[in-house]
Amino acid sequence: MSSWGNGVKISIFGESHGGGIGVVIDGLPSGEKLDFDEIYRQMSRRAPGKDKTATQRLEKDIPEVLSGVLNDTTTGAPLCAVIKNTNTRSGDYGNILFCPRPGHADYTGSVRYNGFNDISGGGHFSGRLTAPLVFAGAVCRQILSRRGIKIGAHIFSIGNIKDSGFDPVNIPNELTDRLSGEVFGLIDKTKETEMRELIEQCRMECDSIGGIVECAIVGMPAGAGSPMFDGIENVISSIVFGIPAVKGIEFGAGFAASGMRGSQNNDEFYYDGDTVRTRTNNHGGILGGISSGMPVVFRAAFKPTPSISSEQNTVDLRNHENTKIIIKGRHDPCVVIRAVPVVEAAAAVAVINILKDVNML
Amino acid sequence: MSSWGNGVKISIFGESHGGGIGVVIDGLPSGEKLDFDEIYRQMSRRAPGKDKTATQRLEKDIPEVLSGVLNDTTTGAPLCAVIKNTNTRSGDYGNILFCPRPGHADYTGSVRYNGFNDISGGGHFSGRLTAPLVFAGAVCRQILSRRGIKIGAHIFSIGNIKDSGFDPVNIPNELTDRLSGEVFGLIDKTKETEMRELIEQCRMECDSIGGIVECAIVGMPAGAGSPMFDGIENVISSIVFGIPAVKGIEFGAGFAASGMRGSQNNDEFYYDGDTVRTRTNNHGGILGGISSGMPVVFRAAFKPTPSISSEQNTVDLRNHENTKIIIKGRHDPCVVIRAVPVVEAAAAVAVINILKDVNML
Amino acid sequence: MSSWGNGVKISIFGESHGGGIGVVIDGLPSGEKLDFDEIYRQMSRRAPGKDKTATQRLEKDIPEVLSGVLNDTTTGAPLCAVIKNTNTRSGDYGNILFCPRPGHADYTGSVRYNGFNDISGGGHFSGRLTAPLVFAGAVCRQILSRRGIKIGAHIFSIGNIKDSGFDPVNIPNELTDRLSGEVFGLIDKTKETEMRELIEQCRMECDSIGGIVECAIVGMPAGAGSPMFDGIENVISSIVFGIPAVKGIEFGAGFAASGMRGSQNNDEFYYDGDTVRTRTNNHGGILGGISSGMPVVFRAAFKPTPSISSEQNTVDLRNHENTKIIIKGRHDPCVVIRAVPVVEAAAAVAVINILKDVNML
Amino acid sequence: MSSWGNGVKISIFGESHGGGIGVVIDGLPSGEKLDFDEIYRQMSRRAPGKDKTATQRLEKDIPEVLSGVLNDTTTGAPLCAVIKNTNTRSGDYGNILFCPRPGHADYTGSVRYNGFNDISGGGHFSGRLTAPLVFAGAVCRQILSRRGIKIGAHIFSIGNIKDSGFDPVNIPNELTDRLSGEVFGLIDKTKETEMRELIEQCRMECDSIGGIVECAIVGMPAGAGSPMFDGIENVISSIVFGIPAVKGIEFGAGFAASGMRGSQNNDEFYYDGDTVRTRTNNHGGILGGISSGMPVVFRAAFKPTPSISSEQNTVDLRNHENTKIIIKGRHDPCVVIRAVPVVEAAAAVAVINILKDVNML
Repeated sequence: MSSWGNGVKISIFGESHGGGIGVVIDGLPSGEKLDFDEIYRQMSRRAPGKDKTATQRLEKDIPEVLSGVLNDTTTGAPLCAVIKNTNTRSGDYGNILFCPRPGHADYTGSVRYNGFNDISGGGHFSGRLTAPLVFAGAVCRQILSRRGIKIGAHIFSIGNIKDSGFDPVNIPNELTDRLSGEVFGLIDKTKETEMRELIEQCRMECDSIGGIVECAIVGMPAGAGSPMFDGIENVISSIVFGIPAVKGIEFGAGFAASGMRGSQNNDEFYYDGDTVRTRTNNHGGILGGISSGMPVVFRAAFKPTPSISSEQNTVDLRNHENTKIIIKGRHDPCVVIRAVPVVEAAAAVAVINILKDVNML
Repeated sequence: MSSWGNGVKISIFGESHGGGIGVVIDGLPSGEKLDFDEIYRQMSRRAPGKDKTATQRLEKDIPEVLSGVLNDTTTGAPLCAVIKNTNTRSGDYGNILFCPRPGHADYTGSVRYNGFNDISGGGHFSGRLTAPLVFAGAVCRQILSRRGIKIGAHIFSIGNIKDSGFDPVNIPNELTDRLSGEVFGLIDKTKETEMRELIEQCRMECDSIGGIVECAIVGMPAGAGSPMFDGIENVISSIVFGIPAVKGIEFGAGFAASGMRGSQNNDEFYYDGDTVRTRTNNHGGILGGISSGMPVVFRAAFKPTPSISSEQNTVDLRNHENTKIIIKGRHDPCVVIRAVPVVEAAAAVAVINILKDVNML
Repeated sequence: MSSWGNGVKISIFGESHGGGIGVVIDGLPSGEKLDFDEIYRQMSRRAPGKDKTATQRLEKDIPEVLSGVLNDTTTGAPLCAVIKNTNTRSGDYGNILFCPRPGHADYTGSVRYNGFNDISGGGHFSGRLTAPLVFAGAVCRQILSRRGIKIGAHIFSIGNIKDSGFDPVNIPNELTDRLSGEVFGLIDKTKETEMRELIEQCRMECDSIGGIVECAIVGMPAGAGSPMFDGIENVISSIVFGIPAVKGIEFGAGFAASGMRGSQNNDEFYYDGDTVRTRTNNHGGILGGISSGMPVVFRAAFKPTPSISSEQNTVDLRNHENTKIIIKGRHDPCVVIRAVPVVEAAAAVAVINILKDVNML
Repeated sequence: MSSWGNGVKISIFGESHGGGIGVVIDGLPSGEKLDFDEIYRQMSRRAPGKDKTATQRLEKDIPEVLSGVLNDTTTGAPLCAVIKNTNTRSGDYGNILFCPRPGHADYTGSVRYNGFNDISGGGHFSGRLTAPLVFAGAVCRQILSRRGIKIGAHIFSIGNIKDSGFDPVNIPNELTDRLSGEVFGLIDKTKETEMRELIEQCRMECDSIGGIVECAIVGMPAGAGSPMFDGIENVISSIVFGIPAVKGIEFGAGFAASGMRGSQNNDEFYYDGDTVRTRTNNHGGILGGISSGMPVVFRAAFKPTPSISSEQNTVDLRNHENTKIIIKGRHDPCVVIRAVPVVEAAAAVAVINILKDVNML
């Protein structure tokens, strides 16, 4: 399903080359003023063509808000935003209909939907469908920001080139604010050139490259979340894996914790004035599924763009024979840059649900 | 919430030192013969005291099935299994009531529940609550096994000592069958001594150690799962993070994919007879959230046991002062061994939901 | 929330005088050919101005399908249909903003949404929001019809004037087919004149009148539905009360059964060839929440249109004083006629969920 | 499914003659003191043998609370209560296994579960399964009572004998308090003799009789509930139809509103001090799915007990022939009396969910 959430539900629709894409957001609090310029700014961070490393196709992703907003303020009724598609189905996707592209959902989607799925541009599996998610996240994060919760993400790595990580116990609002405005989001901006060179090299070699996005949620009050299956990790991961190409997620020290001793990994508590804090933040702001008040920090691993220009082996589903395929068109050699605002958006939608669940919204 | 699932719902209840723990499983297909000896065997894999590295407390985890089963066969009505607690509340947990243990949910639970949560033995946050999950998984995996789906997991690593990983394109039933019967589950059994020595060393040093569990789901038919938020990764992660101490999860190549080129990471398709397969399995059996028919492989990272015997800094919530705590009692220096059957169980409950969602059950 | 369903979810959005209204339908089976002319015909049955007793405002309810359909066939991805509003907000609703209309949701909506709800034309509470529900139902009933399940409803009563009821054990497809094409749906068409006269009389007296819609679902296979809270009655009632003005629902003999003896009310089983049937159908095709194979028959009671032209007492929320209100504009003196296709639509959406839940779709 | 609720979920399990029945309640607020004597008193109102008109079988329905409560106070963790069955399966239900009883779920359950359902005593369909619902309701109503919300129901009618109805605009706490303690709940106690005589007459004639329960929820704050599918009517009806034998529900004027003019049915607003009230309450405290602050009043219609002692026609599922059946054992000739506390309980569970959904709990 393409619906998610409990207290605040999003329902995303659309196919890459269909009539339009969009989202319905149901359960938003009423009376929330929305800054649409800021929403469009968030969407433009994700839009292609904003960054020179990204695909050069033009998308005019101007969402039209059909409902749920009056005088730029939420009414409490479901908010629907629609983005019309300008790229219409071209019919030149014939070969991928029967010859699935490696790393794509062509084959699995074909089995799941008995071949009736729309494959133009990836159909409903297209990365373009993250645009409505960014819209929803942009709405939610304004509501969260008003309650002191800030969300910022950055390119943690591209291939083996790493940005500096967050200082997990001290993430100032200035940093999350800066990051949530960036198109090429880095903590250490000196890494940009090296990263761009790697991406450009991949493009030249008809190849692509993966990476990691790290996201921080700062100002989360202690005591949000629930044990077991409604823990913060459960909720965030269940939405973040909805972003195409994500193959892993970790919170706080994450996989590194598996190599640690308890004496290293345990985060000792102390009083900072009247606030309980921890000296370190290997727990990523979450203990027993519930927020500790420390920054929630997580990382999502993105696989390299499966669309590469070099010839690849595949099958022909018509005659059950092996064959080869060459994927045409321009594709981002690295989705990680544009994924940064998507991860932030997913986090925002997750957090608004987590807070509503415990009457903190 | 401690409820999970859609087509087949589990609702887990209990506190470590309360009257009892258990699970209600609602939505099981009727007419499924259950082998209760096998269920108890699964539960005993998780039970403490089975392995010498684990805690020496005695738990008689004999579940009583109150409903949903007649003549050892599911009736289709909700199945409830109850495990009575023999360890009753002792009252000697006084100091952790106000002085939260680092790495535990004492502090976050106290904020979440305004101090009314039962903290004896960890209360509802206790690892003991994985027993009903293992029960539910044991029921589900018998139903899955009858449909050709096998689940097996192993200790991928403890600290920096690694087992061999699965060959992701070729996981024979003999291996999953063997693993699903092991107490100290390894692919390469020669690693057992080294791992045990590390754990023993941690115990001697009043410390603990983390690790990784790798799980394979073999025989999953292609075409199960759904795009976006009901993808297989979303569903599995949303239940696996319900296991205490899990801080990360990855599917297929996972985080390693973030360092790869597309040409490396893409798994090329080929026909093996009339079956579409991939030469490699970096996608972990999942593309676009939907199964490809290749083995689903994932890894869950466990942090080290937070209960360590050495003195730690913490706070006193009564007087808002910093203080120190020494945790008494015996605790597993490494939860990973006993976590193996829990991960398998979570996977089984996830898979039965994924299949039911697409009418494949 | 304006979202409903589990296996097949609908998410309805829009306000009467906002930018547009519509629905996202998620979870439809793929490969279902849709007859859009028939869908539009269903929508036109509900549209105002089709019947002379109904409001004379003009609505061009031509839905635009943005996604989920390719070559008039469902792709399996979420289907979104949008109907643009041509009536824009006029600003002349000033008095009802503070002086709630009796029988309307003005007051309760204002409290619920702190006055931020859009009240123009009733906002999200408007009967106009049943248009997307009719769209969703029209899609679902085509899928059901292909599986032999037919749905038809009629005006059971307006005020105290009654149509003939269904013969609950024998509802031929010809009848459901005819009814599902009617604008003024009656089993006994001779009652039309009398009903129209009553409605016209109410209009002349600046008043309105209630009524009852009776709906039959024929061809429902035995064994669908679940005990307790997922019974057919639960599911149908939980969507039918989403239709504005519905204040009661009953299945089979319904309230009349409360006055019966068991010997009267029990429906005896018999074999009709190899099919188990009942001689009577007081159970309305449902026993223990599960279908018996007999027609499912239910009735929904509609209150009279609250918008009447005569002066009424109300309050002024600004100064906490009692005041009077006169409601302007044209309104249906009886919503029951246009409610018939809406009830059929709700039933269709309910049934598709009931079938999917038991793998019968 | 036998699970219900969103913010506060109940999961009911058990079969009439199995090991035990019970309920898990997940999502309760922590820190709520529970009066278990009062809970047992509620359960004894529903228990058989308390009233001489009811079945004379003995049930010792003493629930054992396994979790979620410490020092008689909710911990916030799931609360599980188990009631052991003393009536074990006797094997003398042989004929109903193949010869379904008219009016029962024997036939539909058999189709639904392929004959694997437990039919002893009705299995999971048994009225006995309302005991855990009464338990859950008793917990919820204590929490509601502390917030000023009182729930009381009475026997509105048995057959054609009617109690006085509630004065829908003025239901004092004294009345709801009295009713919620009654075993034979009537507003006008002079009707008791006549009702008992009718029931006794039915018993003598080997027959049974239906009736109506009317329930009031008083003290409900204005602004709870949501439009469309999460309206109060939707939520209450979706749980009340989970009570066996309910075939209809109506709110406020209900079906009678269908015969009214708008000028009659509209409830005019006025200020009572600073509180908005209505002069009449045909809307049953609900407008647009949202509470108005007036009492919520609804009626549930119960069909007559299907178990009657006289011979009835049915089918033999083995040889596909028509046959006859005589139902043995003692059965209530009228379930309405014992249904009163069950309806109150269902209302309480519904209301706690409605309030939690809008952060009012």
